[in-house]
Amino acid sequence: MPINYYNKSMKEHPIGIFDSGLGGLTVLKALRKALPHEHFIYFGDSANVPYGAKSKQTVTKLSCAIAAFLQEQGVKLIVVACNTASAQALPTLQKQCRVPVLGVIEPGAQKAVAMTRNHKIALLGTEGTVRSRAYEKAISRLSKKEKVFPQAAPLFVPLVEENFARQPATRLIAQHYAATLLRKKIDTVILGCTHYPVLKPLLAEIFGPSVHLVDPSDTLAAQVKSYLSTFHQARAIGKGSVRFYVSDDPTRFKRLAQQVLRAPITRVYLKKLSV
Amino acid sequence: MPINYYNKSMKEHPIGIFDSGLGGLTVLKALRKALPHEHFIYFGDSANVPYGAKSKQTVTKLSCAIAAFLQEQGVKLIVVACNTASAQALPTLQKQCRVPVLGVIEPGAQKAVAMTRNHKIALLGTEGTVRSRAYEKAISRLSKKEKVFPQAAPLFVPLVEENFARQPATRLIAQHYAATLLRKKIDTVILGCTHYPVLKPLLAEIFGPSVHLVDPSDTLAAQVKSYLSTFHQARAIGKGSVRFYVSDDPTRFKRLAQQVLRAPITRVYLKKLSV
Repeated sequence: MPINYYNKSMKEHPIGIFDSGLGGLTVLKALRKALPHEHFIYFGDSANVPYGAKSKQTVTKLSCAIAAFLQEQGVKLIVVACNTASAQALPTLQKQCRVPVLGVIEPGAQKAVAMTRNHKIALLGTEGTVRSRAYEKAISRLSKKEKVFPQAAPLFVPLVEENFARQPATRLIAQHYAATLLRKKIDTVILGCTHYPVLKPLLAEIFGPSVHLVDPSDTLAAQVKSYLSTFHQARAIGKGSVRFYVSDDPTRFKRLAQQVLRAPITRVYLKKLSV
Repeated sequence: MPINYYNKSMKEHPIGIFDSGLGGLTVLKALRKALPHEHFIYFGDSANVPYGAKSKQTVTKLSCAIAAFLQEQGVKLIVVACNTASAQALPTLQKQCRVPVLGVIEPGAQKAVAMTRNHKIALLGTEGTVRSRAYEKAISRLSKKEKVFPQAAPLFVPLVEENFARQPATRLIAQHYAATLLRKKIDTVILGCTHYPVLKPLLAEIFGPSVHLVDPSDTLAAQVKSYLSTFHQARAIGKGSVRFYVSDDPTRFKRLAQQVLRAPITRVYLKKLSV
């Protein structure tokens, strides 16, 4: 992250946020709640969703192309809402970008370490996030006492995208993923993919009241707020806004995003990525 | 399709076949069974899977890039194993390619029309295939008597990719998709996505013995065979082979492809697409 980047005020500039698709809207919601005066530019890479099973090289290339576009739009900070991209591309993004870049792994790790009592933390995530071991590394930087039990849950993304969150099939699949973790007596579960908070009521039921479910987005939003205020770059008054871009099919995204946000969206812009 | 393309013998040249990912391997199996002496080049676009929810423009651009690569490899014919790509990109591919291009929609439509007795045909497919109405158009060119009932089944692809074909959750989801179709008293179901034949035993049970399940790949293989023999371009002796290319993560593809094909694969080559 460049030192003295904020040598002039960028208060009025927007915050960039991106995800492989719709999932990042749960992070956007948390950010807007914590930072109601800020303008946001949301980029959903709908041409390349899902990132979960793609190689590190491909995820990094796509993330860098999106970050370049967001910087062209004059953002003052970039939030990587996608866990897979945070896990695999964050160091490269932080090296290549002129603006600060924050991911979701670090806040998720912090919250999990703060929550656990028995030091047994489960991680639900995509194949890419699990394979990267990014959560394990972030957690071990914070504390050496914790043991992490990773479980890839690749079907959760399509189930959420297809609005199957409340179907009995989704309960069976969640029980399948949870079975091994429950046997390990974990007391904390990181929802390590932006789609998973949609399944929070179901997962709370399956894991039971003694298990904490960690959604990194609140902690991330608090981190972004503190970061902007430390550097005197927070927009303190006026109404915030969001501008949406996607890399494919804005109509489909608009329809589904309105369901997730439970609010109307005026327009979604198409921006093809050149990678 | 260019006339007199085969002015010299291309018998020894390979057949190109592509799919968005693994699904096309079911088509490859059928082709190898029908054409044991032929060499094949299989391209799986693992960097861009799935195609199902992508726009027509994006699917066409990707398909053209793959077809260009296959032609560089000297293929004598291209088979579009992917239903979504066949439904959305076939006319453009046939216009742009120097070699003949065959898709899966036409054979699927032919077989369904031959099978149905009550003229009520169900189509299970991806969102893109259903939206294109390609099967409806192909069927109506063959017969005006048939009524087609389309049903998008987008969760089948990730369920198959995650090896969940035999899980109870998959049964619930299949019952969900089948419910409306069963009420329409259809007697034929087109498996309009190369992943779906993996679910054939389950779907046969849900739809019951009086409903025909149509897998277009056998009819397609017969069509390719007849095409090559008509143009005196079939390789009549010797052992055939397959060379595999993917656009991302050959290791992952190799592992999963060996499961689908139930045979070892020596090597999978990486070929990034430039689109």
